[in-house]
Amino acid sequence: MLRSLLIGNSKNTTTVFKISPKRFSSQLTADKYAVKRGDFAKLSDEDLSHFHSILNPNQMITDTNDLIAFNQDWMKKYTGQSQLVLKPKTTEQVSKILAYCNERKLAVVPQGGNTGLVGGSVPVFDEIVISTASMNKIRSFDESSGIFKVDAGVILEAADTFLAEKGHIFPLDLGAKGSCFVGGNVATNAGGLRLLRYGSLHGSVLGLEVVLADGTVMDSMHSLRKDNTGYDLKQLFIGSEGSLGIITGVSILCPARPKSVNIAFLGLESYEMVQKCFQTARSDLCEILSAFEFMDHDSQLLAAKSLKTTHPLCQEDETGVDSVPEYPFYVLLETSGSTKEHDDEKLENFLEKVMGDETVVDGTVSQDETQLRTLWTWREGIAEASQQFGGVYKYDVSLPLDSMYSLVEAVQERLKKLNLSSTEDESKPVYEAVGYGHIGDGNLHLNVAVREYNKEVEKALEPFVYEFVSKHHGSISAEHGLGFQKKNYIGYSKSEVEIRMIKDIKHHYDPKGILNPYKYI
Amino acid sequence: MLRSLLIGNSKNTTTVFKISPKRFSSQLTADKYAVKRGDFAKLSDEDLSHFHSILNPNQMITDTNDLIAFNQDWMKKYTGQSQLVLKPKTTEQVSKILAYCNERKLAVVPQGGNTGLVGGSVPVFDEIVISTASMNKIRSFDESSGIFKVDAGVILEAADTFLAEKGHIFPLDLGAKGSCFVGGNVATNAGGLRLLRYGSLHGSVLGLEVVLADGTVMDSMHSLRKDNTGYDLKQLFIGSEGSLGIITGVSILCPARPKSVNIAFLGLESYEMVQKCFQTARSDLCEILSAFEFMDHDSQLLAAKSLKTTHPLCQEDETGVDSVPEYPFYVLLETSGSTKEHDDEKLENFLEKVMGDETVVDGTVSQDETQLRTLWTWREGIAEASQQFGGVYKYDVSLPLDSMYSLVEAVQERLKKLNLSSTEDESKPVYEAVGYGHIGDGNLHLNVAVREYNKEVEKALEPFVYEFVSKHHGSISAEHGLGFQKKNYIGYSKSEVEIRMIKDIKHHYDPKGILNPYKYI
Repeated sequence: MLRSLLIGNSKNTTTVFKISPKRFSSQLTADKYAVKRGDFAKLSDEDLSHFHSILNPNQMITDTNDLIAFNQDWMKKYTGQSQLVLKPKTTEQVSKILAYCNERKLAVVPQGGNTGLVGGSVPVFDEIVISTASMNKIRSFDESSGIFKVDAGVILEAADTFLAEKGHIFPLDLGAKGSCFVGGNVATNAGGLRLLRYGSLHGSVLGLEVVLADGTVMDSMHSLRKDNTGYDLKQLFIGSEGSLGIITGVSILCPARPKSVNIAFLGLESYEMVQKCFQTARSDLCEILSAFEFMDHDSQLLAAKSLKTTHPLCQEDETGVDSVPEYPFYVLLETSGSTKEHDDEKLENFLEKVMGDETVVDGTVSQDETQLRTLWTWREGIAEASQQFGGVYKYDVSLPLDSMYSLVEAVQERLKKLNLSSTEDESKPVYEAVGYGHIGDGNLHLNVAVREYNKEVEKALEPFVYEFVSKHHGSISAEHGLGFQKKNYIGYSKSEVEIRMIKDIKHHYDPKGILNPYKYI
Repeated sequence: MLRSLLIGNSKNTTTVFKISPKRFSSQLTADKYAVKRGDFAKLSDEDLSHFHSILNPNQMITDTNDLIAFNQDWMKKYTGQSQLVLKPKTTEQVSKILAYCNERKLAVVPQGGNTGLVGGSVPVFDEIVISTASMNKIRSFDESSGIFKVDAGVILEAADTFLAEKGHIFPLDLGAKGSCFVGGNVATNAGGLRLLRYGSLHGSVLGLEVVLADGTVMDSMHSLRKDNTGYDLKQLFIGSEGSLGIITGVSILCPARPKSVNIAFLGLESYEMVQKCFQTARSDLCEILSAFEFMDHDSQLLAAKSLKTTHPLCQEDETGVDSVPEYPFYVLLETSGSTKEHDDEKLENFLEKVMGDETVVDGTVSQDETQLRTLWTWREGIAEASQQFGGVYKYDVSLPLDSMYSLVEAVQERLKKLNLSSTEDESKPVYEAVGYGHIGDGNLHLNVAVREYNKEVEKALEPFVYEFVSKHHGSISAEHGLGFQKKNYIGYSKSEVEIRMIKDIKHHYDPKGILNPYKYI
């Protein structure tokens, strides 16, 4: 869904993409980042024949044009050179494929909906893409317990639509829900918009079916909320980004669907007030608080330019026409509950309190489903809005709440000082740096909207951003993962001991390193 | 707290406990279960001197009498022979101790509050006990995020009392809270009474500090709700029962403390109605439902005999005196929320509905804090009540909701058929088998109250119970863990592949097997 809305970047082009020179002209990841190919086998005709013995012809893609979508991420930042996509339909087929690839030392990339932001799901060289797109069956749903079992390739939105009919909700929601797969969500430990309410996947995933590098199937698709017999091995695969095994099935606990949803969109005078507002919401809205998102002024200015509609809290300009957003900070707050009149009353009391003590200076509340969706676009639309001038450098970090926004200010100041940034002067590479994200989760998205991708800008931002995060004991990847982009920066968030332990586990499960090489660790 | 209430069992005695023949006369675990000592070094005077160089004299226990409490579990079912208890105060001390033990191949048992139910925290032979009792500092609490950092040896109740003053709640509660340690809770992945509301520790624990077998300190005491940089290694240690490392610090996310708590105690005519009642509660009480516990008739009969107070839903006998509980099933349901009048109204509407359609036939609601606590005793008191005739065989299993209670019926029938059970005939070894537990978590506690521990009864129960659970794809240990008791039964809940993977991980982190040997796997 998101995908069709996005504007590709074609400015950063020096090498012609080998597979389809007509349609794309992106530089190959391997060239752009000077990566050296690993010591893997090269795909032979015998290999193809072998895969033909496992799969039907329509489960294998070798056509140059058809390969493009699997070789490129949706931001078109990373471009691989795979010559083969396999689309197994069963776990047994995945097992046979991996057993063979491991034996032959053929590298593979597991791919779900390919909506990732760090280049984790596309090849770098000629890795075989193993797509879970054909594994898309809902296996079972138990209404009494809320336990839901699906194939890895089920689209998140399809899963949630199915659950909605049964009065339940998938405990994860994110912008790419129309394209991303449940298996990919688990493999990347996706966070999203309602983590605040439903917690992380480490808590809600009950079981996984995973095919290991050597083809072994770990079937722990338990229907149990509690099981204390042995190490909780499935946890290792949640967030492993396809580097330890391929997730083929997911068993997850789904809560009852809230019957009432409210949105409040608030204007605040400072970041301190955003924090104060969050404290009051945690305490007073407590069990019905389901999202608490913040956006800075400039992010809303960007969104206004891109959405071309009236901002919910805009001021009129001198001519009396609706103009720019007015406040330094905005909060989008969502409540979800079982009883509308109770939720309304709680929200009303909360708003009275925060407006009474001037924590909040302005606000609007959704009156119906349409308004609710419209208000969300002012938060969800920032990602696309950030790309409107050509491109965007995206950072997704966890920081302690009190130092969270200071990263945005530090980056803005730095770009100004280096004379790289201006909203008016089109000769400057950077348009603006904006901040927004999940306050409730301590998760900031810093988007640097640029007119062009530019080495000087990159050098201004990195490792500056990572050093800032490290100094404040944050994480350089809150929810997007490591993938290709952040592979070399893990040291800013993890100690040497932790990195060694992570490498040991990788080696333990994938001694030949065939699973998603050049990434993660 | 619990400990002092419990009645020890002294009937199953054949061998005199070597360390303190005067005070205890329990059979040694090693003898009772014919365990062979592993190929570990024996404690020497040089070892003691070395530990003296790390610890103060008051951090080492070698006195025969003082060792008893560390050698025996609180049910007095398992008795070890350790000659040395070490009580480090710092992580560095734990690290030095383990590095030395690993080098020397001296086996160790990590011990928290020693409240476990499967013999996991006491030695079998002469393992050195490493107690976390002296590591009991609260490290930090961040009111804005709810992130709480503590030493492993902080008592659960102390942690919760501290949090209560800050308007927060520890996301775990269980009967042993007055004695158990937070580190032990995490090491055993404790479930407890409010998992339904706050989820499992895999979701709420944000970071751990763990000392590995070779003394390496894994410091991942993050203050971050989200961090997708590398495998979530801490998860392996949650529920590893001291077999992979010693947890020395815990960082955990604590929710806002609910301002209003209600309890309803309900009488129901059948197990089907218990399930139906749970469905309605999930849907209608949704976000405020914090516990849904069920108890069968006989469990209440046992509790009534033990508590010697009037059952909340008793009937009068012919003489007009309060008598036995009346219904086949009972439900204790708790709501926790931020607004009392809303919670009251939701509960009222719920009760009207379930009593209107006769899902529930009788009930009472707590009017104040005292009543609330009294009602809870009818659920929490069953554990002790089950021991009043001499002893109890305890099973803690996960089963799909619809087949959950049929295990209790099957066991009752089997014991009757084998002529082993009678509430009147005191010559029968078994008094009664009762069922209760956390319906909301699919977790059944089956307690077989016995007049004596008896091989014939044991043979009637095992592997019968485990086979039943396995046939219904359940777990033989929902929350108590494996410890010593269930080490050999893991095959009933885990596949060969999973068991192999668990053994591989154990070998990976503890190649010499010094951590908590003879247990877990």
